[in-house]
Amino acid sequence: MEVLVDKQQHIKDKFLEIRQRTERICKSLEKDDFSVQPIDYVSPPKWHLGHTTWFFEQFVLSIYKEDYKLFCEDFAYCFNSYYNNVGDRILRVNRGNMTRPTIDEVFEYRSYINKHLSEFLENDLDETICQTVEIGLQHEQQHQELLVYDIKYIYGNQPVFPTLDLDISLKPNTSNGFLDITEGVYDIGYKGKDFCFDNELGVHKVYIQDCKISKSLVTNLEYIEFIEAGGYQNFNLWHADGWDWVKTDEITSPLYWHKVNGKWKHYTLNGLVDVDLDLPVNHISFYEAWAYAEWKGMRLPTEFEWEVASKQLDYGQLWEWTNSAYLPYPNYQKEEGALGEYNGKFMINTMVMRGASIATPKHHARPTYRNFFTPDTRWHFSGIRLAK
Amino acid sequence: MEVLVDKQQHIKDKFLEIRQRTERICKSLEKDDFSVQPIDYVSPPKWHLGHTTWFFEQFVLSIYKEDYKLFCEDFAYCFNSYYNNVGDRILRVNRGNMTRPTIDEVFEYRSYINKHLSEFLENDLDETICQTVEIGLQHEQQHQELLVYDIKYIYGNQPVFPTLDLDISLKPNTSNGFLDITEGVYDIGYKGKDFCFDNELGVHKVYIQDCKISKSLVTNLEYIEFIEAGGYQNFNLWHADGWDWVKTDEITSPLYWHKVNGKWKHYTLNGLVDVDLDLPVNHISFYEAWAYAEWKGMRLPTEFEWEVASKQLDYGQLWEWTNSAYLPYPNYQKEEGALGEYNGKFMINTMVMRGASIATPKHHARPTYRNFFTPDTRWHFSGIRLAK
Amino acid sequence: MEVLVDKQQHIKDKFLEIRQRTERICKSLEKDDFSVQPIDYVSPPKWHLGHTTWFFEQFVLSIYKEDYKLFCEDFAYCFNSYYNNVGDRILRVNRGNMTRPTIDEVFEYRSYINKHLSEFLENDLDETICQTVEIGLQHEQQHQELLVYDIKYIYGNQPVFPTLDLDISLKPNTSNGFLDITEGVYDIGYKGKDFCFDNELGVHKVYIQDCKISKSLVTNLEYIEFIEAGGYQNFNLWHADGWDWVKTDEITSPLYWHKVNGKWKHYTLNGLVDVDLDLPVNHISFYEAWAYAEWKGMRLPTEFEWEVASKQLDYGQLWEWTNSAYLPYPNYQKEEGALGEYNGKFMINTMVMRGASIATPKHHARPTYRNFFTPDTRWHFSGIRLAK
Amino acid sequence: MEVLVDKQQHIKDKFLEIRQRTERICKSLEKDDFSVQPIDYVSPPKWHLGHTTWFFEQFVLSIYKEDYKLFCEDFAYCFNSYYNNVGDRILRVNRGNMTRPTIDEVFEYRSYINKHLSEFLENDLDETICQTVEIGLQHEQQHQELLVYDIKYIYGNQPVFPTLDLDISLKPNTSNGFLDITEGVYDIGYKGKDFCFDNELGVHKVYIQDCKISKSLVTNLEYIEFIEAGGYQNFNLWHADGWDWVKTDEITSPLYWHKVNGKWKHYTLNGLVDVDLDLPVNHISFYEAWAYAEWKGMRLPTEFEWEVASKQLDYGQLWEWTNSAYLPYPNYQKEEGALGEYNGKFMINTMVMRGASIATPKHHARPTYRNFFTPDTRWHFSGIRLAK
Repeated sequence: MEVLVDKQQHIKDKFLEIRQRTERICKSLEKDDFSVQPIDYVSPPKWHLGHTTWFFEQFVLSIYKEDYKLFCEDFAYCFNSYYNNVGDRILRVNRGNMTRPTIDEVFEYRSYINKHLSEFLENDLDETICQTVEIGLQHEQQHQELLVYDIKYIYGNQPVFPTLDLDISLKPNTSNGFLDITEGVYDIGYKGKDFCFDNELGVHKVYIQDCKISKSLVTNLEYIEFIEAGGYQNFNLWHADGWDWVKTDEITSPLYWHKVNGKWKHYTLNGLVDVDLDLPVNHISFYEAWAYAEWKGMRLPTEFEWEVASKQLDYGQLWEWTNSAYLPYPNYQKEEGALGEYNGKFMINTMVMRGASIATPKHHARPTYRNFFTPDTRWHFSGIRLAK
Repeated sequence: MEVLVDKQQHIKDKFLEIRQRTERICKSLEKDDFSVQPIDYVSPPKWHLGHTTWFFEQFVLSIYKEDYKLFCEDFAYCFNSYYNNVGDRILRVNRGNMTRPTIDEVFEYRSYINKHLSEFLENDLDETICQTVEIGLQHEQQHQELLVYDIKYIYGNQPVFPTLDLDISLKPNTSNGFLDITEGVYDIGYKGKDFCFDNELGVHKVYIQDCKISKSLVTNLEYIEFIEAGGYQNFNLWHADGWDWVKTDEITSPLYWHKVNGKWKHYTLNGLVDVDLDLPVNHISFYEAWAYAEWKGMRLPTEFEWEVASKQLDYGQLWEWTNSAYLPYPNYQKEEGALGEYNGKFMINTMVMRGASIATPKHHARPTYRNFFTPDTRWHFSGIRLAK
Repeated sequence: MEVLVDKQQHIKDKFLEIRQRTERICKSLEKDDFSVQPIDYVSPPKWHLGHTTWFFEQFVLSIYKEDYKLFCEDFAYCFNSYYNNVGDRILRVNRGNMTRPTIDEVFEYRSYINKHLSEFLENDLDETICQTVEIGLQHEQQHQELLVYDIKYIYGNQPVFPTLDLDISLKPNTSNGFLDITEGVYDIGYKGKDFCFDNELGVHKVYIQDCKISKSLVTNLEYIEFIEAGGYQNFNLWHADGWDWVKTDEITSPLYWHKVNGKWKHYTLNGLVDVDLDLPVNHISFYEAWAYAEWKGMRLPTEFEWEVASKQLDYGQLWEWTNSAYLPYPNYQKEEGALGEYNGKFMINTMVMRGASIATPKHHARPTYRNFFTPDTRWHFSGIRLAK
Repeated sequence: MEVLVDKQQHIKDKFLEIRQRTERICKSLEKDDFSVQPIDYVSPPKWHLGHTTWFFEQFVLSIYKEDYKLFCEDFAYCFNSYYNNVGDRILRVNRGNMTRPTIDEVFEYRSYINKHLSEFLENDLDETICQTVEIGLQHEQQHQELLVYDIKYIYGNQPVFPTLDLDISLKPNTSNGFLDITEGVYDIGYKGKDFCFDNELGVHKVYIQDCKISKSLVTNLEYIEFIEAGGYQNFNLWHADGWDWVKTDEITSPLYWHKVNGKWKHYTLNGLVDVDLDLPVNHISFYEAWAYAEWKGMRLPTEFEWEVASKQLDYGQLWEWTNSAYLPYPNYQKEEGALGEYNGKFMINTMVMRGASIATPKHHARPTYRNFFTPDTRWHFSGIRLAK
C-alpha cells in the first residue's frame, strides 16, 4: 500500500515536469515548423504534442474521470497513432497535411489535459490507473526523443539549416580497448520494481560464449576510413538487402553528411559544421553498422552480450545497434487491451538497439531497455559498438 | 510612345492592387495553413506567395534595377517553379517540406519587393521591362486562382472543414437551350492590343461545321441523374484512360462530394453544405465531362466552336472543358528566354479549357484565353457545357 | 446486291491469305519465343495468334453460325483484349504468364477457326456479317504489324540478338526538299467505298494555312547530329512531359541503339548492325520527334496538312508523327456494340501518326488512315517528317 | 586420405543421379512452361536448369579443368543468380523475358556439362574440388525444391490448372499432443562429418526454458476454424507488418485457396481439388503462422527448441516456421570467395524454417538445417507447428 502511495506521489511529481519538457524542446520552433512531414516516418511536431496528450485523454481521463468532457471530438481521429483498438485514425502518411487543429489549439489542448489530469492525480488512485499514467509518461518521454529526431530531420532538409535551442551534444569516448565477457549462463531481463516495458520482462537465462566488447563507439575518424577505403562500393561487406538499400537510395555517407569542397561537414542541431573526428559517428543504419564491422573483421554484439557487459560500459551517447532481432523473450506477455499494441506487434523485421542517446530523457532508459528500429533507418541517434 | 506611357501608368496602377489582392485571399488563413502540400500538384500557400514575388525579383529587379540587392540568396532555390533556365530549384514534391523561410519572412519578402518594384516603376521604362512586369502581374493573377484551388484542397481534407473568408460563389444558369453556330470559316486567336499570352497569338482561320452549343452549364441536379443512372459503373461511357482512372482512384462522384445519410453534401469554401441542385456542377475532370456528354448522347464543344460562340454565351462561373487538345496555333512562336517555358512545353497530354471561373481575377481572362489541364485533374473550378 | 456478292468474294479470297500471313511472320520463331511479355505493352506472339482467332469466333462464328461449338470455353478469358462488353479477361500485364494453352494448341485453334469460317463463308451472307469478317481481317492485319513490333522487342532484349526470317527493310529517301501546301479549305476524311475505320469517316472541311512539308524523312545521319549537338541534354527542346521521360527512362538515343566502341549500332530484325546513315531514323517517340523539329527550328505537320500533302509524298516506310492529338472528327459515330470499343475510347492522351510502315501489310493503310500512339512509345516503326 | 577417396566415390555416384532428378521434375512440362516468370521471386524453370548447370561450369570446370572450353560465353550473363563476385548478370526481374537460349539449348548445355564433369570426376581430385562439387550438388537439390515451388506457382495461375507428373503428396499427422522440453543448456549446430552449410557450423550452447512442442502440424480443419472465426479480420492477432500485408495484398486464405460455391478448394500439383481437412495446412506465410498461434493462445517454437525436439518429432512434410530470426551462430565464418555469398548476406529480414518438405530431395536436409524466408512469402511448402 505504501508502495502505491509512493508511486502516486512519484507520478504527481513527474507529471508536469515531463509535460513541460516536451514543450521546452519545441521552444525555439517557428509556427511554420510544426506541421510538415518530409518523409513518412517523420511526424510533424504538432502531431507529437497532440498525440502524447491524447494518450492521457484516451486511456486515463475518458475512462476513469467522472463526467470528463473531451476537449474536442475530432482529436481522437487526428492524434491516434496506431492503436487500431480505439477506432479510426488519420493515416500516418497524411499527418503532414493536417493544418487544423492549429498549433495554438494544440497547446490549449495540452493545458486542458494538464489541468484535468493534475486535478485527477490529487485523488486516491488505484494501481491500474497509476500504471496507466506511468505508461503515458514513459510514452511521452519516448516521443520527446522522437521529437528531437523529427525536428532534426525537418531542419536538416531546409536550405538554411536552422538551429534548435536545446542543450545536447556528443562527447569523445572516455575509454578504449575491449572488455572480456566470460562464457556461461546469464540472467537477462528486468528484475527491478520500478517501471519497465512488457518486452523487458520474464527474466530468463541465456548462454553466452566468450567474447570481447569494445569500450568505445566507432568515431567519425574511423568511419571516414571506411568511406575512403571504398566501403560503400564493396558489396562483399553488405547484406543483400543492405546493398539494395545503398544502391537504391544512393547512400555514400551517414545521414546529414555533405562533402563541401572536399571536406566532410554534417548538419547538427547547431547548424552545418565540420565533422569532428574525435566524436562517435552518428546517424548510422544497421546495414552500415554491420558493413563497418565486417570491414573491420569484427561483428556487432548481441543484445544479451550487451546487457551483460553494460555494467562495465560507458554508454548513453548513442543508441547502439546489436545483431539481435527484436523478438519476444520466453514467456513474453503483451499488455491487455489497446496498450498491448505497444510492443509485441513490432517484433518482426526490426533489430534491437541498446543503451540510450543524448536525446533520451534522463532516467528514461535502463540497461535492460530494448529499443528497436528497421535496419534501414538512421534518422535516430545511432552509433556502432564492435564485438569480436 | 504615348502608348508606352499609358502602359506604364496602367501597370503602376495595377501593381500594388494585384499584389495586395494575393494577400487578401490569404487573410483568414492560420499560420499552420501556409506550409502543407497534401498532394503533389497542390502547392503550399507560402510557396505561391514567395514564388510570385521571386518572379519579379528574378525577371525584373535583378536584371534591370541597378545595384539591386537580393532579399535572400536562398530564395531563388526555394521559389523557382519550373524554369530550368534559371538554375536549380526545390523539387515540386518537396515544396510541402519547406518550413523556412517562415511565412513572416515571406511577407517581409513581399514588402521588400513591392517597395523596390514600386520605386522602380517611377522611372521611365522601356517596352521590354513593361512587358515583363505585365507578365509578372498576369502570372500573379494566375497564382491567385491556384491559391484558391489549393487552399480549398487543403481545407477540404481537414476533418473540421474550415471556411475561407473570400466572397466567391456560384449562381444558377441564366439561360437555357442551345445556340446555333453556322458552318463556315472563322478567325481564331487574339486580335486586340492589350496583353495576351503567346498561345493565343497568330490569328488564323478555322473551318467550323454546323453545331449547337448549350447556353447553360450542366447542373448538380443533372449530374446526380448521371450518377444515379450508374454513370460511374458503365465503362461504355468512358475513355479507356478515364475508366482506368475511375477504377484506380475509386471515383464515384465529383471532388469534395460526400454522401451523408443518403444525401449529397459537398465541401465549399463556406464549409460542408448540401449540394444545391440548381447550381452548375463543379470539380469535374475531363474524363467525367466527356462521359457525361456521352451519356447524354451529346459531346463537348471544341475550343474553336467555343470561341466563336463566346459572344453569345453567359460564361465565367467555371472553366469549361473542351474536346480540344492543347496544341500550338499555326505560326505559334514561344517567348524568348526563360519566359518561353511558360506555355509551349505543356502542349502535350493536356486539354483546353475556355471561359473563366468565379476564382479568376477580374479582367484576367479573355474570350481567346486558353487554359489547360490534364484530363484527370479536377481540383480547379471546372464544369461542363454540352454541344451537339 | 452485286456489290455485296463482290464483297463476299473479295473476303473469301482474302481470308486464308491473311490468316496464313500471320503464321508466316512467326515461321522462324522458337517455341520459347511465343510466351513472354518483356514490358506491359508488348504482347506475347502466342497471344496475338490466339486473340485474332478469338475475334472471329466471338464476333462471327458464335453469333452467326448455327450450332457452332466453341473450340474451348476458357479461350475467351485468355484471348479477349480490352472488350469490356464481352466479359472477363486476363489482365494485359499478365499475358506473359500464360503458358497454357500451349502454342501447339493455339495453332490448332487457328486451324479450327479457319476451317469453320471458310465453310461459313461459302454461304450467302448478309452485309453485317461481311462487314464483321472484314473488320476481323483488318484487325488481324493490325496485329500482324504489332506482331513484328513485339517480336522485335523480345528479340532486341535477348543477349544473343536473334534474327527474324521476314523480308522487310528500310530504303533511303527518294526525294528531297519541301512541298508547298496552299492556304485554303480542304476536305478531310475517307470518301471511298471500300473498308475504312469509323475514325476516318465524316468527310469534313478543314482550313489549312500555307506551309511546307518535307519530301523526305529525317535520316540517321541527321538524327546523330541532333544527338551530338546535345539534343538529349537540352531541356529547352522538350515538352515538360518529354523531359521527364528523358530523365526518368534515361533516354539518350532511339530505341535499340547501342554505342559500341564509339560507334552507333542498332538492333534490326537482321541482328545487331551498324547504323546506316542514309536510312530514315526509326523507333522515335513523339517527344523525340518534336524535340528534333524544335532543334531544327521547324515543326511536325498536322494530320490535316499531311493528308492534303499525301498525294505528292513518297511515304510508307515508317509511321510519321503528326502534331495532331487523336480526336474525333465532327459527327464521329462510333460503331455499335463491342466493336465500338475499337477506336473512340482511345481518343485522349494519344497522338496521330499517318502513313504506313514497312511492317504494315500491303493494302492495309490508306492516306486517310489514322494510327495513334501515346507520345512516349517508340517500339513501333516510327519516324520524323518535318514541316515549317 | 581414405575419407577423401570415399568422398569422391560418393560424389561420383551422386552426380548423375541428382542431375537427372532435376530433369525428371520437368518431364511433364510443355516447352511453353519453361520461360515465364509470373512474379519476381518465381524463376522460369529454364533458368533453374541453366543456373544449376552454370554453377558447375563456373566454380568447377572453368577453374579446375585444363583446357576447358565454355559451352557459350553468354551463358554466364544469363544464368548467374546473385554472385556479384563473378560479374554482370541478368536482373532477377528480367529472367522471364529470356527466350534465348531455347530450352533445347539448355538441355544441350546440361548434357555438355554432365559429360565434362563426369569425365573430370574420374581423376583424382583434391579436397577443395570435391567440396565444391558437393556444394554444387547441394545447390542443385535446393533448386529442385524451388523448381517444384515455381512450377506450382506458374501452373496455379493458369486458368486451366495443369497437373505435374511428380509423385509427392501430403499425409495426415501421425501423432498428437505435445512434447516436453526440459529447461537447460543444449548443444546447437551440426556435429557430423558429412556435408553441411556454413550457417549450421560452430556448435555452441544455448539455454532453453521449459516448453511444450506440438507433435503435429496444424491441419486444414484447424486453419479453417481460424478463417471462420475472423482471423484475417482481427488486427490484434497480427504483427503490424503482417496486418499491412493482409490489407495490401487482400489476403483472406492460404495461397492457392479458392472458395467455390461456398466450399474451399485449392490448387495442388494434381489440379484444383477440395481441401482435405485432415492434412496439414500448406502455403502459409510467417505472418499467418504467427497470427494463428496468437489466436490459439500459443506461439511458434524457436529454432533451438525445434532442434532439441527434432529427434522426437515426425517431421518432413512441410517446412516449419520458427519464431527465430535468421542470424549467424557465434563464431560464424562465411565461406571464402564467391561461395561466401551463399548464406551470410541473407541474415537480415528473414525468419528461420526448420524440418523439410515433401518437395525436399531425399537426404538433403538435416535436423540442424537452417532454411530461411522473408515473413511474407508462402509459395514454398510451409506449415505451422505450435509451441507453448
